[in-house]
Amino acid sequence: MVSRSFVNRLYTVGSLRNTASGPAYRVKNRLFDATLTAVTNVSVDGVPCDRATIEMVVGDEVRSVESISAREPLPFALRTEVEIRLTGPALAEGPHTIMSEFVCDPFGTLSFEAVDYVVQPPATRPRIPRLADDWSPEAVRQRQDFVRDVTGVRLEHVSRMTYDPQLTRGNIEHMSGTVQIPLGIAGPLRVNGEHAHGEYLIPLATSEGTLVASYNRGMKALNASGGVTCTVQADSMQRAPVFIFDSAREARAFSVWLQENLPRITEIAESTTSVGRLQRIETYLAHRFAFCRFDFSTGDAAGQNMVSKATFAATSWIVGQRPEIRHFYLESNFATDKKASLVNVMQTRGKRVTAEAVIPRQVLGSVLRVTPEGLVQHGSVANVGAFLSGAVNNGLQAANGITAMFIACGQDAANVAESSAAVIHGEVVDEGLYISITLPSLVVATYGGGTALPTQAECLAMLDCVGPGKVNAFAEIVAGTVLAGEVSLASAISALDWVSAHEQYGRNR
Amino acid sequence: MVSRSFVNRLYTVGSLRNTASGPAYRVKNRLFDATLTAVTNVSVDGVPCDRATIEMVVGDEVRSVESISAREPLPFALRTEVEIRLTGPALAEGPHTIMSEFVCDPFGTLSFEAVDYVVQPPATRPRIPRLADDWSPEAVRQRQDFVRDVTGVRLEHVSRMTYDPQLTRGNIEHMSGTVQIPLGIAGPLRVNGEHAHGEYLIPLATSEGTLVASYNRGMKALNASGGVTCTVQADSMQRAPVFIFDSAREARAFSVWLQENLPRITEIAESTTSVGRLQRIETYLAHRFAFCRFDFSTGDAAGQNMVSKATFAATSWIVGQRPEIRHFYLESNFATDKKASLVNVMQTRGKRVTAEAVIPRQVLGSVLRVTPEGLVQHGSVANVGAFLSGAVNNGLQAANGITAMFIACGQDAANVAESSAAVIHGEVVDEGLYISITLPSLVVATYGGGTALPTQAECLAMLDCVGPGKVNAFAEIVAGTVLAGEVSLASAISALDWVSAHEQYGRNR
Amino acid sequence: MVSRSFVNRLYTVGSLRNTASGPAYRVKNRLFDATLTAVTNVSVDGVPCDRATIEMVVGDEVRSVESISAREPLPFALRTEVEIRLTGPALAEGPHTIMSEFVCDPFGTLSFEAVDYVVQPPATRPRIPRLADDWSPEAVRQRQDFVRDVTGVRLEHVSRMTYDPQLTRGNIEHMSGTVQIPLGIAGPLRVNGEHAHGEYLIPLATSEGTLVASYNRGMKALNASGGVTCTVQADSMQRAPVFIFDSAREARAFSVWLQENLPRITEIAESTTSVGRLQRIETYLAHRFAFCRFDFSTGDAAGQNMVSKATFAATSWIVGQRPEIRHFYLESNFATDKKASLVNVMQTRGKRVTAEAVIPRQVLGSVLRVTPEGLVQHGSVANVGAFLSGAVNNGLQAANGITAMFIACGQDAANVAESSAAVIHGEVVDEGLYISITLPSLVVATYGGGTALPTQAECLAMLDCVGPGKVNAFAEIVAGTVLAGEVSLASAISALDWVSAHEQYGRNR
Amino acid sequence: MVSRSFVNRLYTVGSLRNTASGPAYRVKNRLFDATLTAVTNVSVDGVPCDRATIEMVVGDEVRSVESISAREPLPFALRTEVEIRLTGPALAEGPHTIMSEFVCDPFGTLSFEAVDYVVQPPATRPRIPRLADDWSPEAVRQRQDFVRDVTGVRLEHVSRMTYDPQLTRGNIEHMSGTVQIPLGIAGPLRVNGEHAHGEYLIPLATSEGTLVASYNRGMKALNASGGVTCTVQADSMQRAPVFIFDSAREARAFSVWLQENLPRITEIAESTTSVGRLQRIETYLAHRFAFCRFDFSTGDAAGQNMVSKATFAATSWIVGQRPEIRHFYLESNFATDKKASLVNVMQTRGKRVTAEAVIPRQVLGSVLRVTPEGLVQHGSVANVGAFLSGAVNNGLQAANGITAMFIACGQDAANVAESSAAVIHGEVVDEGLYISITLPSLVVATYGGGTALPTQAECLAMLDCVGPGKVNAFAEIVAGTVLAGEVSLASAISALDWVSAHEQYGRNR
Repeated sequence: MVSRSFVNRLYTVGSLRNTASGPAYRVKNRLFDATLTAVTNVSVDGVPCDRATIEMVVGDEVRSVESISAREPLPFALRTEVEIRLTGPALAEGPHTIMSEFVCDPFGTLSFEAVDYVVQPPATRPRIPRLADDWSPEAVRQRQDFVRDVTGVRLEHVSRMTYDPQLTRGNIEHMSGTVQIPLGIAGPLRVNGEHAHGEYLIPLATSEGTLVASYNRGMKALNASGGVTCTVQADSMQRAPVFIFDSAREARAFSVWLQENLPRITEIAESTTSVGRLQRIETYLAHRFAFCRFDFSTGDAAGQNMVSKATFAATSWIVGQRPEIRHFYLESNFATDKKASLVNVMQTRGKRVTAEAVIPRQVLGSVLRVTPEGLVQHGSVANVGAFLSGAVNNGLQAANGITAMFIACGQDAANVAESSAAVIHGEVVDEGLYISITLPSLVVATYGGGTALPTQAECLAMLDCVGPGKVNAFAEIVAGTVLAGEVSLASAISALDWVSAHEQYGRNR
Repeated sequence: MVSRSFVNRLYTVGSLRNTASGPAYRVKNRLFDATLTAVTNVSVDGVPCDRATIEMVVGDEVRSVESISAREPLPFALRTEVEIRLTGPALAEGPHTIMSEFVCDPFGTLSFEAVDYVVQPPATRPRIPRLADDWSPEAVRQRQDFVRDVTGVRLEHVSRMTYDPQLTRGNIEHMSGTVQIPLGIAGPLRVNGEHAHGEYLIPLATSEGTLVASYNRGMKALNASGGVTCTVQADSMQRAPVFIFDSAREARAFSVWLQENLPRITEIAESTTSVGRLQRIETYLAHRFAFCRFDFSTGDAAGQNMVSKATFAATSWIVGQRPEIRHFYLESNFATDKKASLVNVMQTRGKRVTAEAVIPRQVLGSVLRVTPEGLVQHGSVANVGAFLSGAVNNGLQAANGITAMFIACGQDAANVAESSAAVIHGEVVDEGLYISITLPSLVVATYGGGTALPTQAECLAMLDCVGPGKVNAFAEIVAGTVLAGEVSLASAISALDWVSAHEQYGRNR
Repeated sequence: MVSRSFVNRLYTVGSLRNTASGPAYRVKNRLFDATLTAVTNVSVDGVPCDRATIEMVVGDEVRSVESISAREPLPFALRTEVEIRLTGPALAEGPHTIMSEFVCDPFGTLSFEAVDYVVQPPATRPRIPRLADDWSPEAVRQRQDFVRDVTGVRLEHVSRMTYDPQLTRGNIEHMSGTVQIPLGIAGPLRVNGEHAHGEYLIPLATSEGTLVASYNRGMKALNASGGVTCTVQADSMQRAPVFIFDSAREARAFSVWLQENLPRITEIAESTTSVGRLQRIETYLAHRFAFCRFDFSTGDAAGQNMVSKATFAATSWIVGQRPEIRHFYLESNFATDKKASLVNVMQTRGKRVTAEAVIPRQVLGSVLRVTPEGLVQHGSVANVGAFLSGAVNNGLQAANGITAMFIACGQDAANVAESSAAVIHGEVVDEGLYISITLPSLVVATYGGGTALPTQAECLAMLDCVGPGKVNAFAEIVAGTVLAGEVSLASAISALDWVSAHEQYGRNR
Repeated sequence: MVSRSFVNRLYTVGSLRNTASGPAYRVKNRLFDATLTAVTNVSVDGVPCDRATIEMVVGDEVRSVESISAREPLPFALRTEVEIRLTGPALAEGPHTIMSEFVCDPFGTLSFEAVDYVVQPPATRPRIPRLADDWSPEAVRQRQDFVRDVTGVRLEHVSRMTYDPQLTRGNIEHMSGTVQIPLGIAGPLRVNGEHAHGEYLIPLATSEGTLVASYNRGMKALNASGGVTCTVQADSMQRAPVFIFDSAREARAFSVWLQENLPRITEIAESTTSVGRLQRIETYLAHRFAFCRFDFSTGDAAGQNMVSKATFAATSWIVGQRPEIRHFYLESNFATDKKASLVNVMQTRGKRVTAEAVIPRQVLGSVLRVTPEGLVQHGSVANVGAFLSGAVNNGLQAANGITAMFIACGQDAANVAESSAAVIHGEVVDEGLYISITLPSLVVATYGGGTALPTQAECLAMLDCVGPGKVNAFAEIVAGTVLAGEVSLASAISALDWVSAHEQYGRNR
């Protein structure tokens, strides 16, 4: 069912080379765990190889092809490589076609075909050391030495990491030490969420002076207003394949078919994950392209890998069903991963969270030295500014708080690109100021990514956000923190707003 | 010359309270270094206080007002506080008006007037410990204990910072330890810049698996193409005040006046900085508002604080000259600091850098398994996706590389919000593929921010980006790294592009 | 069921004044046809009026309130006014509260309450003449005379309209003649649509020289390529109310409730129209607001009024069901009527139409003097331009053809604002050039608006687009025409693209 | 100085064909008036033709090449064609290369070279009749008959145009009659402009019922507030060429050179026009492209053709000076002509006009039935809507008034695409409501385009906008009208805003 092309794409990043005994071709498993139960064919330039001479090597294990069976399968885990070793004469320099058919669990019979080149070794460059156990202290140390040899820089502080580098397996390649980011704390902040109830000390990792103080001041105002009310309004992580047809009409027909087959597609997509749930498929038609967003809920994970895998599985089935699909790409720039975009602002990416507060007039005056009217007036001018400047955020400094919490808590800080989008709104109400910020694309996790790294896990623990079912609580706390920062900075900017310059100057002469 | 309102705004964030001996009012210096040479008046609720009883406290120094003179001035440094202590009866709960006039260097006679409240102490909350020497190991330790007491979490790893916390003064408040981010290295990458020449080992701090590997693969392709050519095309950091008038006509007249007085404004702005140079003032008119962007070059610093200070000085002079200014705000959402925006994409924020390469067809085939035509076709479909989805980036993963380098090298990762904007372009040329990425708003520094922190300085040193005049080299290296990531991921996505699904399915049955 | 507030809003635009016999209050029906079957109460400033003295006047009909009954109802048609005449003393200058309760078909018991002012007559200004039969030739003539008297301009040509002005009833108020727009014809254009099959002469009303010629040239190229293939990919007209709650949480709950009650809401909305069908309700949450887009298909009408009426009915029911709705507005800037917007580009407004063609290389060369590669290269540079400039159209001149057809064919040319949004895509294929344009928000009609006006109906007839079921054919022809214009202008711009400037200069010396 | 390639592009749109006496090649002058003073060479497929046998035909004039001299030049006006007639054998089917060198005033020696095809006549299609005097009543009549013959539609009303079709020369091709658009009048509107002072009757051509009434109501409110204050804040029309280099570095160097050579470029650009003035050249760098916007003031004309011609002349000189320019296009999608875009919103296209008013509370109440607070609240919610929906207009119906005035007054209604962009802002002030709308890209003219057509000229005359120096007055009146429409519709939408739904329902049961 899974087509050759997928296998081609997902597995074959290996390099063809000549060894002393014969050609070798390395293949990497890039997307999912699999187990090989048979290798039925290997050919080079269309000539089948003698099965008796073919070996498969995974890690330290060397297996003859004939020995691989359902009973004695060859595990081929995600991100590992298999090397296919052939016995025979060296291949000439230039392009060669490599083909292989095999059976694997859970995908059945697969094949791939790739053109690869036997190339001249490239210009000699120092190569970053890699070891079999590449996250071992020894590997880390060798790379630190390598840095010293190549650049003359001794990584004195980088090398003083305080935990076993093996803990970073899956988090990084070429692990070489750690960078230390100063951690400050703010709060406590009273959060009235549906998931986070109570007062939280907020960990903020940053090297930007005044950031912690600014947020802390906003928290004081929010606390004095009874806390900040936070609500996760939507939750959606996506992968956005595009399907290409011969005509717009076929693309349109496909979009209908897609919705009709949603139950089956859902079943296939969800078969790859115990957590992810396909919520819907958005379709956007243009030309002969059908752009799709496969929207998933992803539990406590941010879920980008989860949804890639699930969407891949679904896409694979879809492509098999619809022969009129001429091409497709698993990503079409419509997921807008790590990019600010309006589709994320409208349709949510990660969590859509709103933080709200009603701040009494006296709190504004005594804590922030502003009036509700002053803040709203500044907001209305700043809205014009945001509108004219084409910003995806009409607020002030959401990125600051989000980034500092993301770094502290093991989030992927690259997601600040989209997570920092925000819509702010304030209005004068009887009690003082209603102020609200909506973060439409906050990508957060309490599982996976860097959340389990030692220092990061401690920060998550400070927020009681360790363990299953905590991601929404974390999203609420982030949003509440962001609102604190907006209140604080808006007040700093607005404090002048009632003063006419003329008067100032006159009085000051 | 500097008006009371500015002083009001910039200095008075202090809190009014009753002490045993009398009222006290604390004032913080938020924007610039100053030295008080006289305090000429202090009054509460319009009643002048007896000068003989007034004391000024800065840090540990307690000075009677009468002792302050040009000969024996009171230093009042940026970010420090002065407390004005009065002798007398306690003030009643509620609002009080505090006024003070003083002489300071370099601003001359200033005065401020503020309404402040004597408030009931707020609900008891645990308070984060603060010490006089708040970056001392003791202060850090006390806060770690506080976290433990309040949340039950022992900061075992966070507390194992490997350097003196005093080094973080100016980088963070409520310093409580450090978060350790895994550091990987990629490359070397051959960069053919105007400032960065040679091969660079790229430090990448991340917890996202495959990131380092992905960039490393792209670097291999770029190296095999002779390296990546990087060019800083523009350099501009801004603060964007808005001036408010009675009518659109006055706003228009002001915009003319502003350009006519540019030499004087430049002089004033630049008097506050030895490095920053005012390049131009952009003006955008709407309604009765004149939105301005004061564009500066800022040397090796990212420069947000530098331009705030310089713009403030200029604005202060401007407001004094133009009595028809009714209001103004130092920021109007037109700088779009830490926000993706089209004004940044068009007009540059930080560095505008382009990284280009021509990748030979064989390199594409052997290293990346793609053809130039395949990459360009995917690019053209992805362009439609980016256009429809309203993204500020038609590329793929710029945010990943930027964030990882930013964290490693002591940049402000919150600037990923705007720095991740990118425009990518590829075309088939005789040699293979011309590919280019322009980062229009890359905010980088080799001075200030976190650049001097121990681990971060080591990463900058790896890139030979420590010391004066290095920021453009750093910008070039970042851009080159970003292009490597684009090439790598585009190839991964595109590898399938020549396969029609029908064929796939047919051949795979 | 319909609440007072709606009635307030929709009916009461009338003016309170004193007449010789007593106060009078005029009410206009602004949204739908109704029939009054009883007036149960009228009060002024809280004092009920004597029913025996109240008269209702609609047009020439004067009815005592007591005479109105289900058997002898008072018709109150859309856009007509009723005057409530009371007998009694004049009201004092200043504000007065008017209240009325009545029963009407099909809305049942309604009431309204309004504050109105008895005001000084405003400064004397010349008043535009209005007659009882305001579309009569006499009324038109009086206004022409009025123009002459007030401005000194004789409307010699404007007054020479060639048809009975009564035909414009419902199309315009203060009808004063006609403006004549030159009509050119282009084509024939071969359209291979699902609704429009064949060759069409295209009517283009414009005063911009070269427009007709430019489109004509593009049509020649498309015809030589076998014609243009056009596909309506989606069809959706919307009204976008916003519902305001006390909190984001309530807004979220409401969005769930809305989907759960879709069948009932659909029933109510569709009860107001024989043609419109509610397709779905999109919801976008931010703060405590639920922004909705009620998407309808609207048959041959553009449908803005149809969907307003239907959405109003639905909204009215919704508001009655959900007492937690604090406010609502029938429009929230999310329909983006007559505005370019990304939500329209993504989610369709009016018709989403794609026009495609494959233009053979020889046709490009002989008709347009370009190559496929040249056009695609220009397109890729222009894409960068469109991306940087924040345009909602990466094509060239869609607005030209759309506007000229809109004016010719009785469309609402104000919809050019959103209809001119376009996404263009070209790629080199074996046969030459695949080129496609998608118009995501083309608002067209073959019924209603100006489609029945004499000259406009003739233009629609030229396209065989008169009569039921023709709107999609019309949309296809518009899109095909637009593609012709793109091909023509792109070629004109690109004709230079293979020339390097150096070479040019050298050869030309 | 002008290079061959430009001539190629601008002149050669002619078709190669075989006549009885020999090959003929037709060339059209597409951009500027010229006079040929010598034809020095004509060759086909590289073989020079015998000069004695070459004839040039312009209109009815047939001239031997040898007779053309500076004393007896051949006028070659803009938009006319010259046919080059050769004596000799027919050319074979397929491509041929035509080259010609000639001397012309004011451009000096020029040459062009083009590949053209002798093609099979295309499939027989009915051809639109064209006459030598193509704007004669006879030509118009023949086309009307043609429409009848081809489509069966008698253009009874279209054919009843009331003026001589010759008047439309330069406005349209294939002139076939006129379309009549109903004209209504609104006002008078009191405009307090710098150019328009007084009360104006506003001509509105539309077929959308209620439009005139809605604007009229808004005008009533503005008049009662003392009128609307209108200000043209900027004026700029642009053409946006892009220059392509080998590298980003060259593009950067070029952008510096461009500013350094601004005086000379200005001189050349302005040599083509008696009215246009080059204000500045904006440059936007990305990749190896330099996108430019040449900004001009254009007097009373909208000026698109004027700036094309002037930019072409400048570009031609530039390309000659900078041999490193590899390609260029006269338009790059950065002018965003007839497209909504953020660059227009920021940088102005056409006129940037602001209309402002302060509407007293009582006027709001008595005329519009709203309060200042109600309008501002709706505005703040609608702002969120506009921001989320990615609209280029946060107002309501600017497109309606602009389009109706554009059609009435001979403007190019296709410019509604960008002219309808608007930013609206309201705030509560002591007197009531300050409301303002800025139209950043209003493209208007009182000269050229359709402004001189009989009915259109009458409408302009109503506004006293006929004759030199009137365009700013017209822009002011348009903006004032737009504000009237916003006030009116905002009030209609907002009238409900103080009512909570719960209350409504309760009181209405």
